[in-house]
Amino acid sequence: MTADLDPEEFRRLGHAVVDWIADHRAGLEARPVQPGVEPGWVRARMPAALPEDPAPLEDLLDTVDRVVVPASTLWQHPRFFGYFPANASLHSLLGDMLSGALGAQGMLWSTSPAATEVEQVMLDAFAGALGLDPAFTFAGGGGGCIQDSASSAALVVLLAALNRADPRWRESGVSGTERVYVTSETHSSLAKAVRVAGLGAHALRVVDTAPGTLAMDPGAFAAALRADVAAGLRPVLVCPTVGTTGTGAIDPVRAVAEAAREHGVWVHVDAAWAGVAALCPEFRHLLDGVELADSFATNAHKWLLTAFDAGLLWVRDGTALPKALSITPEYLRNAASESGAVVDYRDWQVPLGRRFRALKLWAVVHGAGLSGLRAHIREHVALAAKLADQVRADPGFELVGEPTLALVCLRVVTGDGPEADDAASRAVLDRVNASGEAFLTHTVAGGRYVIRVAIGSVTTGAEHVDQLWDRLRAEAAAVRSAAGTRQYP
Amino acid sequence: MTADLDPEEFRRLGHAVVDWIADHRAGLEARPVQPGVEPGWVRARMPAALPEDPAPLEDLLDTVDRVVVPASTLWQHPRFFGYFPANASLHSLLGDMLSGALGAQGMLWSTSPAATEVEQVMLDAFAGALGLDPAFTFAGGGGGCIQDSASSAALVVLLAALNRADPRWRESGVSGTERVYVTSETHSSLAKAVRVAGLGAHALRVVDTAPGTLAMDPGAFAAALRADVAAGLRPVLVCPTVGTTGTGAIDPVRAVAEAAREHGVWVHVDAAWAGVAALCPEFRHLLDGVELADSFATNAHKWLLTAFDAGLLWVRDGTALPKALSITPEYLRNAASESGAVVDYRDWQVPLGRRFRALKLWAVVHGAGLSGLRAHIREHVALAAKLADQVRADPGFELVGEPTLALVCLRVVTGDGPEADDAASRAVLDRVNASGEAFLTHTVAGGRYVIRVAIGSVTTGAEHVDQLWDRLRAEAAAVRSAAGTRQYP
Repeated sequence: MTADLDPEEFRRLGHAVVDWIADHRAGLEARPVQPGVEPGWVRARMPAALPEDPAPLEDLLDTVDRVVVPASTLWQHPRFFGYFPANASLHSLLGDMLSGALGAQGMLWSTSPAATEVEQVMLDAFAGALGLDPAFTFAGGGGGCIQDSASSAALVVLLAALNRADPRWRESGVSGTERVYVTSETHSSLAKAVRVAGLGAHALRVVDTAPGTLAMDPGAFAAALRADVAAGLRPVLVCPTVGTTGTGAIDPVRAVAEAAREHGVWVHVDAAWAGVAALCPEFRHLLDGVELADSFATNAHKWLLTAFDAGLLWVRDGTALPKALSITPEYLRNAASESGAVVDYRDWQVPLGRRFRALKLWAVVHGAGLSGLRAHIREHVALAAKLADQVRADPGFELVGEPTLALVCLRVVTGDGPEADDAASRAVLDRVNASGEAFLTHTVAGGRYVIRVAIGSVTTGAEHVDQLWDRLRAEAAAVRSAAGTRQYP
Repeated sequence: MTADLDPEEFRRLGHAVVDWIADHRAGLEARPVQPGVEPGWVRARMPAALPEDPAPLEDLLDTVDRVVVPASTLWQHPRFFGYFPANASLHSLLGDMLSGALGAQGMLWSTSPAATEVEQVMLDAFAGALGLDPAFTFAGGGGGCIQDSASSAALVVLLAALNRADPRWRESGVSGTERVYVTSETHSSLAKAVRVAGLGAHALRVVDTAPGTLAMDPGAFAAALRADVAAGLRPVLVCPTVGTTGTGAIDPVRAVAEAAREHGVWVHVDAAWAGVAALCPEFRHLLDGVELADSFATNAHKWLLTAFDAGLLWVRDGTALPKALSITPEYLRNAASESGAVVDYRDWQVPLGRRFRALKLWAVVHGAGLSGLRAHIREHVALAAKLADQVRADPGFELVGEPTLALVCLRVVTGDGPEADDAASRAVLDRVNASGEAFLTHTVAGGRYVIRVAIGSVTTGAEHVDQLWDRLRAEAAAVRSAAGTRQYP
């Protein structure tokens, strides 16, 4: 007797769910990208209590159709242009289904050798495909692992940096003098990691960006380092970003790393979104200087077709994370770990348990090929360039900087000054999102409201970006008309 | 053009993967539970480089069959008795497939309202089904969320406790005077959380267990609190465990919580494995005193049929985690969050991104019913009681304490003293595991080697525990024979 499905029941129901998925994906384009529901809409429509008895899957699918899908922002929709993309490709779902089938815990090599070694192979191979320094591979003395997110990657490398700076950290904790260097544009996960690690916000040094840019000024960073060292503080980590979340700014990794080296500061390169573009030789220059870094993170779950969670993290010193994070109770002791011949990935992360996530990454590269992954990236970069040309040519809009890869930042131009442009840009974004036809998010750069167009959803093609541009122009016209603004400045 | 499968290709390949899963699960029992591979076995058999071109799924499945499965510890095998179980039921795989289909990021309510609200509904409903104090529900001012693991749950509640103890923590970091209370039997994730949070091992107070037990001595805890406060230290958190990993010991939650209350210490109850048993009224007494705690964690991904990751965490104060963890950059600002009417789960965890994990939990309770979940737990508890009776009746073995729920701890008895029993127990465990017929892990309790039998795999039934018992007796006989020991002491 088991409370689970037997395999033959699963075969039938699994086919039904696969069909549901195929139909859902095929029908995405006809749906609004963002739902128009109010808080509480879903809760009011869910069954009040848990069912006492088993119920047929069909009932669950019915509730999903009636309640869940209509209240979901459709991240896989081809006109989803918000945040950064979150590619849950159908290739990766197949791999993740296999992972679920095995149901392995990969916390130790011994708890499932394949889970660990497939991940090692994938991370070494992707390091090569991205053109990373071989020092980041296991063969080169470093190594890679899959984290749930770039946030967690930032946290664990900060812990490794604290331990490297002073191994007494494991016994005594932080000292209060550690300092971590970012810019105003660095992802908030760095500030969160600093807080989680017990350093407090006062340990976060926000380095100036170079005049007229949103990229870290390496001179300002070097000066901050010197001043802090002179004041008896301990610089621990600097995080240059390749492709900031706000506007895609690119910090000068090489110059930052050279300044950091003098003081033994850990250099963590956060390329969460943009890093995967280095699969294409023509974009590899974005990673210039990463060979001087201590760690490098990019997310396969953003723009590399692999469903969340698949944050890729490489470190130059393969012992750094275990030295910082390993704690071994008796019930985890085993001969393989004690031999020193294996990697135990639990020591590369905060949680103990871990899913066999490398299978979905493998399924993606197996199914799409490196050529397919490159084509995916190149197509979106080309679409961004085309959109940027259209924005440039239209007096009713302006570009905010040049696009980085497939991220286009723009504003509506009213002719009535920057405050009016802010208001019009915000109104246009709200109207586009309310239309359901496309979904956009914003940032503030240089004090001004900026519309972000992040091209990169799995099925986004030329027609979808054209539809977005038409919609942007139409909504801008409507906003100008409502405001009594001139149709063109 | 897309690098992904089109939905019709996915339909065909998805059916093939579902068939693979059904066949794999149906064939599990005939396979060895643990592989006999050496380090490097998998790596040596994997393709050396990533494929340039797309390849057929059949090739991937072939490599999985030849390389991955033979090198996998089969956690879903009915004779897997190691660690604690990791139930990846077929019900939960169906729910997780739906989650993959949607590919939503549930970091904010606004980034997918259904992902947040279904999780709220599930956590409120499970709180009720487990008999938790209504104060732990959203309706009661608290709330629950899904963490990847009990480790991460422990970390975030420690951060909330630090913030509650002194909100200057967010700006200034830890002070060096904070103290956290555990026992020698508390899960190592607490020591890891203390390290991650920057407190250092010196902040960890290992409270004595009561004489003759492995449960925290509340008198010793109260005395440690008084001494630390008198010394100017700041007690922050205590973690009583319901069902320790080693031997299933149960700390006296009520007495610990009463002592903690005097000093405003956060009480986090770690019931990672045992907590789900409270679905059965007859086991609810295990959670006595939890109504006095600040937070409570139990994992649906251990013994509640839900594939990893599904760590359930409830807190009494629904604002505690966001107060400690929220940091809001411009690109995450949105009207719903600013209204205060919604929960943004990113503020309940370390990572920013989050998968729609509530769907798999929902699919489990929908497909199995609460009655099925209770039957799953009850059957395993009954099997443990039967095994314990057999151990008790056999002079060649001894029980180490009474079973907790479905965890039986035992030793081989040689008649030649405890060192010989240690060696024989270790040898028997190694031989059982090497046989491939069953998989067991060990702990050390009271300085003695202990074989743990954790009954709880999804399809484990009476015949599998009988087979284990036969194998244990046969291997013990072989060990005694090899050692020239008397067949019975």
